[in-house]
Amino acid sequence: MDSVRFDTAEQVRKACRTGQLAAPTSGLAQGFQQGNVVILPAAYADDFLRFCVRNPKPAPILGVSEVGDPRLPSLGADLDIRYDAPAYRVFRNGEATDTVTDIEAFWREDFVTFVIGCSFSFETALLRADIPVRHIEAGRNVAMYETNIPTVAAGPFAGPLVVSMRSFNPQDAIRAIILSSHLPQAHGAPVHIGDPALIGVDLAKPDFGDAPDIRPGDVPVFWACGVTPQSAIRHARPEIAITHAPGHMLVTDLRAEIA
Amino acid sequence: MDSVRFDTAEQVRKACRTGQLAAPTSGLAQGFQQGNVVILPAAYADDFLRFCVRNPKPAPILGVSEVGDPRLPSLGADLDIRYDAPAYRVFRNGEATDTVTDIEAFWREDFVTFVIGCSFSFETALLRADIPVRHIEAGRNVAMYETNIPTVAAGPFAGPLVVSMRSFNPQDAIRAIILSSHLPQAHGAPVHIGDPALIGVDLAKPDFGDAPDIRPGDVPVFWACGVTPQSAIRHARPEIAITHAPGHMLVTDLRAEIA
Repeated sequence: MDSVRFDTAEQVRKACRTGQLAAPTSGLAQGFQQGNVVILPAAYADDFLRFCVRNPKPAPILGVSEVGDPRLPSLGADLDIRYDAPAYRVFRNGEATDTVTDIEAFWREDFVTFVIGCSFSFETALLRADIPVRHIEAGRNVAMYETNIPTVAAGPFAGPLVVSMRSFNPQDAIRAIILSSHLPQAHGAPVHIGDPALIGVDLAKPDFGDAPDIRPGDVPVFWACGVTPQSAIRHARPEIAITHAPGHMLVTDLRAEIA
Repeated sequence: MDSVRFDTAEQVRKACRTGQLAAPTSGLAQGFQQGNVVILPAAYADDFLRFCVRNPKPAPILGVSEVGDPRLPSLGADLDIRYDAPAYRVFRNGEATDTVTDIEAFWREDFVTFVIGCSFSFETALLRADIPVRHIEAGRNVAMYETNIPTVAAGPFAGPLVVSMRSFNPQDAIRAIILSSHLPQAHGAPVHIGDPALIGVDLAKPDFGDAPDIRPGDVPVFWACGVTPQSAIRHARPEIAITHAPGHMLVTDLRAEIA
């Protein structure tokens, strides 16, 4: 048997489609932009699109499909969103009910797919610049927090901005801020640095992910997080919504380092 | 009598040369790069040039003259360094002895002139981006501190890195960091953010300039400062050296916002 390769986005998507990959995509197809997936009935699509446009830091839009069309050719000629992410979560009335590896059985003719930038390509850029990323070194998930910063609502989509936190020594924090400013499709520049209380965050109590590893002298740096639109979906309570499973992203043909 | 205009670098230099300007240059000829002036005997020039090249953040070189030549045509076709800054300080064995408005009487055939970027153009860029600069709002000089960070020595030129500190709310601090990273000739990105003690600084006790105005929630941001090479000159104790008087910069024809 040939070994399965994950060097390109197309290889990763094909492995998902053929049942050879149902694992997190961190570190796969480096240099390719990975994305959060949100699939909604068309009745919710216009409001959700406006929500993303109004909140570009947590929800930078990489692509939007036609109604009922599972393809997103601008993100991959062969891409079929029903099969091409490693795993999916199905939400009914805002509550997760199923985790599946394809969504053929759930597909509806009125579904619209949104793909939203994620921070994996930013973290790859940090590591390439020799900036230590503490949660990756510790083999943990990044710490994520609901803030006291409201998103700009659109129809039923609303709720607090969710941020991810990475801490660095002050010099690496400066470099991480500058580097991320060049990657707007991976959430861009941070939304906050320093005192967590100013944005309603207690570092020891993440709302999602794992507790952070903060070293003496570290500066906490907070980026807008792709969990924000997922929170807005829970807030909107559509009868059905489908997202990727956490960490199991859609890998696109977009180059990660070109915004 | 015609009113004197200070819209262009050439107008400012001409006003200095004709005795119509002997005042600080902050706010004059906006959009033109201002510079620190250092004039040394040729015996010191090679070491000082290496000092600047080894410490580009405090000492970004805008221009270097030929030995004994008071012109710097790359910084202004008409520029004559003997007359074109508003005021000068003369140092003997590292100690300031005279403040004068031209240096014709001190000129030597072995003098070499260095022009080093300064932060005025960066502060103009902050104000244009609606980022408040506290010391300008308070009508004070920026607070400057000797740090525990050593410069890289070259011959007799050595000593601590001197930094200027500006504090901002966290969101403006992020923007100021990104903005300054695009202006390497105005000291570029900061060298430190957050806890002053990590670089040996007590914010309440500036070594140069005025005490800072720090608001609740502010993040202190520290940039390498053009006072650093002046400190290195005091350390080297050449028999004679001439600099601009503090705040009385040389205004060059370089555009401030193009690095």
